[in-house]
Amino acid sequence: MTPPPPSADQQEPTPRVADTPRTSVGVLGARGRMGTEVVKAVTAAEDLELVAMIDSGDWLFDVANAGAQVVVDFTRPDVVMDNIRFCVDHDIHCVVGTTGFDAERLATVAAWLEAKPDVGVVIAPNFGIGALLLMKFAQEAARFFPSTEIVELHHPNKVDAPSGTAVRTARLVAEARRAAGLPPSPDATLDALPGARGADVEGVAVHAVRLTGLVAHQEVLMGAPGETLTLRHDSYDRASFMPGVLLAVRQIGSRPGLTVGIETFLGL
Amino acid sequence: MTPPPPSADQQEPTPRVADTPRTSVGVLGARGRMGTEVVKAVTAAEDLELVAMIDSGDWLFDVANAGAQVVVDFTRPDVVMDNIRFCVDHDIHCVVGTTGFDAERLATVAAWLEAKPDVGVVIAPNFGIGALLLMKFAQEAARFFPSTEIVELHHPNKVDAPSGTAVRTARLVAEARRAAGLPPSPDATLDALPGARGADVEGVAVHAVRLTGLVAHQEVLMGAPGETLTLRHDSYDRASFMPGVLLAVRQIGSRPGLTVGIETFLGL
Amino acid sequence: MTPPPPSADQQEPTPRVADTPRTSVGVLGARGRMGTEVVKAVTAAEDLELVAMIDSGDWLFDVANAGAQVVVDFTRPDVVMDNIRFCVDHDIHCVVGTTGFDAERLATVAAWLEAKPDVGVVIAPNFGIGALLLMKFAQEAARFFPSTEIVELHHPNKVDAPSGTAVRTARLVAEARRAAGLPPSPDATLDALPGARGADVEGVAVHAVRLTGLVAHQEVLMGAPGETLTLRHDSYDRASFMPGVLLAVRQIGSRPGLTVGIETFLGL
Amino acid sequence: MTPPPPSADQQEPTPRVADTPRTSVGVLGARGRMGTEVVKAVTAAEDLELVAMIDSGDWLFDVANAGAQVVVDFTRPDVVMDNIRFCVDHDIHCVVGTTGFDAERLATVAAWLEAKPDVGVVIAPNFGIGALLLMKFAQEAARFFPSTEIVELHHPNKVDAPSGTAVRTARLVAEARRAAGLPPSPDATLDALPGARGADVEGVAVHAVRLTGLVAHQEVLMGAPGETLTLRHDSYDRASFMPGVLLAVRQIGSRPGLTVGIETFLGL
Repeated sequence: MTPPPPSADQQEPTPRVADTPRTSVGVLGARGRMGTEVVKAVTAAEDLELVAMIDSGDWLFDVANAGAQVVVDFTRPDVVMDNIRFCVDHDIHCVVGTTGFDAERLATVAAWLEAKPDVGVVIAPNFGIGALLLMKFAQEAARFFPSTEIVELHHPNKVDAPSGTAVRTARLVAEARRAAGLPPSPDATLDALPGARGADVEGVAVHAVRLTGLVAHQEVLMGAPGETLTLRHDSYDRASFMPGVLLAVRQIGSRPGLTVGIETFLGL
Repeated sequence: MTPPPPSADQQEPTPRVADTPRTSVGVLGARGRMGTEVVKAVTAAEDLELVAMIDSGDWLFDVANAGAQVVVDFTRPDVVMDNIRFCVDHDIHCVVGTTGFDAERLATVAAWLEAKPDVGVVIAPNFGIGALLLMKFAQEAARFFPSTEIVELHHPNKVDAPSGTAVRTARLVAEARRAAGLPPSPDATLDALPGARGADVEGVAVHAVRLTGLVAHQEVLMGAPGETLTLRHDSYDRASFMPGVLLAVRQIGSRPGLTVGIETFLGL
Repeated sequence: MTPPPPSADQQEPTPRVADTPRTSVGVLGARGRMGTEVVKAVTAAEDLELVAMIDSGDWLFDVANAGAQVVVDFTRPDVVMDNIRFCVDHDIHCVVGTTGFDAERLATVAAWLEAKPDVGVVIAPNFGIGALLLMKFAQEAARFFPSTEIVELHHPNKVDAPSGTAVRTARLVAEARRAAGLPPSPDATLDALPGARGADVEGVAVHAVRLTGLVAHQEVLMGAPGETLTLRHDSYDRASFMPGVLLAVRQIGSRPGLTVGIETFLGL
Repeated sequence: MTPPPPSADQQEPTPRVADTPRTSVGVLGARGRMGTEVVKAVTAAEDLELVAMIDSGDWLFDVANAGAQVVVDFTRPDVVMDNIRFCVDHDIHCVVGTTGFDAERLATVAAWLEAKPDVGVVIAPNFGIGALLLMKFAQEAARFFPSTEIVELHHPNKVDAPSGTAVRTARLVAEARRAAGLPPSPDATLDALPGARGADVEGVAVHAVRLTGLVAHQEVLMGAPGETLTLRHDSYDRASFMPGVLLAVRQIGSRPGLTVGIETFLGL
């Protein structure tokens, strides 16, 4: 997929970097599972420059000293607010994947940003573009189908069932069904073993499969007379979140204020 | 799925039909495979009244005599233009599923409608809502994935491969990829048996499976590093086209002029 | 799929029927949903001759008068025992798809057959070859995979969940796992919504999806480190049971005594 | 999944290892991609002891000095014959996953083993139990279905299409179809884009999808009137081959002579 290198006589004397200045990126939580992937992805991106890798025990100040324009934070709920505060104070844009944000925390960050009209912070529960598309499409299609159910399938080490993404998807579907005035999904079941028909999330049945060998998968099944529409997302690797992270890194400079979720960055 | 009947003290003395007058519908090609389904669907719809069933050998004039407000046409390319002309002249809206419309025919119909600013005609190659959603979602998602391929699966009596819907989907995907500036799908294949990599439709590989027992199915597979998104539509029965036909029947009265495809009626 | 007719000079003067006499078949329950399909299938088979169609109100004696060699019974639990008794007494082989056989009924039929060493009766809960293969393969593969779960998907008018076939498959899998000394499927779930993890059938999780548009489908998912094996059966039509019925009709003449299930006829 | 530790009063004074002596295993090609996985798997197995890790530049003699009872060879076609010869001479059993064995090489190894009636060598093109089960089931089921097609899906860096496993599966299916006297799969295609209907492998259509994000997947689709049976294998990780390798390591000591493929070790 990469073009072959130019032959010697075609090479330009001025280096490419002079034409398009690269964005300086610092990574907080750089030795964590997600941080490690972010470091790799930023390093591999031609338009980005990795200027700081920070983890617990390091000085947060180094990220400012290194001239980072954007920081990516995959740390922990107990430190992430301090990290964001520091970055906002130093005019550094933030792309935050750390979990644990409730309405109060979001309001706090929004308040900080009022004093810094040029700084952007995006806080996203999910950077997987495929998963976000799946949720969006399920939400859009739901009103056309009398029946919708969700099957999510994960490795057996997962502690919650159904997955957070499946519950979120079910809620979006339920909301779309209510808005369209749909009656409950038809179901003539009279004689069922306990659990057979899955969990009920606002009227949408959600089934959770746990299987050695699987990673993270989700299927939304929608049915109308004579046809079904199935939307399936398979996530095999943490690498799948990186396109969403890099997209946010590239766009956050022109998105001042607080953004929740990367959906708008995707133009969805 | 139907709401429970109102209890006695809630019932209105005037019958429901007086409140919302039903739309009168005529069916052209009423004894054909699609026409038969349309007759059944219109008969079953509480807000529609079947007033005429016309097929070859019958007088087209009967559809006007019967007071049809909307006509559904699933006939043949050699008679459909006469049918539309007749309906437009008699101020009857048309929902047309007959095939064989090219740019010239569409222009002719549009010209007829200029003289009748209140009449609506919709000509649609596909009334399957699931199939239309699949095409739309594939088109929207394509720019986020380096790779897209299509697998369509049909009964073995089908004479064309790939299916028209698969080719149309591939073209929409190819267009979205070009608009987003995507390079060709990566493919390191050096050593292939002829046909193994499918048909090439504007750079999108399309594979056609033919299998006893299947009906009509289509899968769009999209891949990015570490994840895949799969959109699948299964059509088991001609009944699956009826919700789209009825939707068009209900809306065409408020959609004057020529509409191609029912996508806008769906709010997509 | 049918071979081309022989050209004139290859044709034999003696008719084909003289060479291979056709088997005479009577159908009991001939106007029922399954019986109707059996009548069609027997009529279409070149090596079989339909000699009697019997339903409630008809004389059972007609099936003997007509010279039936084999009877196919898709009737009701309250009449099937009388039917079988009659056939055994008249040296007619029986292929029985009627439900409701317990150990006592099977013992009764076996006892009747002791007095008629040349007569065969096969009683089968399922004539679908695909479903039988699925069960067999699931049973064989189970011991190689730490995890097995089952997802069955049906139309929303089904009253039981999970389906009888899914429960039967789960029991076969559970038995194979016990025989191989496998520990329970790994599952770290701590925090689950009620029903999310499906029904527990002897330690095998079974999930039941109900969706407008679907017919009858079953998936067995098996996982080991780094890989999964999925077996899926889709049944679209009652016609899918006919190859199994015809196979039984053709073989029962050479299978005296009582046979339960058509697995042995399939050579499985 | 691990059993709970025994309570104090149940514990035996003598360590477990004294009761069941562990098998000593040497790994050839220990630094290669497969060899690395084998080293991990042998180390993790309680009944096996890793006594030698050999790669190019090391002395092959060390594997004998270390007392290896079994050697696992994932090396290269140009060295594997020397390795096997050395092991056979030193009474070491061999489990060989290296490729490039033709009839001549197999005959040579068989001849060496004649002089060593107690030594076992197994040479296998595929240690993936899931893939082997898929091939076996496809072969067994093929005769019951008028139609069989294969879809294999891989990452886009694969150079051959279809995959070797898919071609092997297609040949097994074709053989089973011929043995059952099945006519060609029905296919009314008259108007096809080149490649749409896949590659023809002895009459079985094989379709190869290449998609970023995928790893290695194969689907066998079989159809009969009104039903389909789908067998799918997903391989996510090289770890999936290890259960097959360890099974061979544990059994080869009691399987003297040359064995090709691990199917018989699986009891298939």
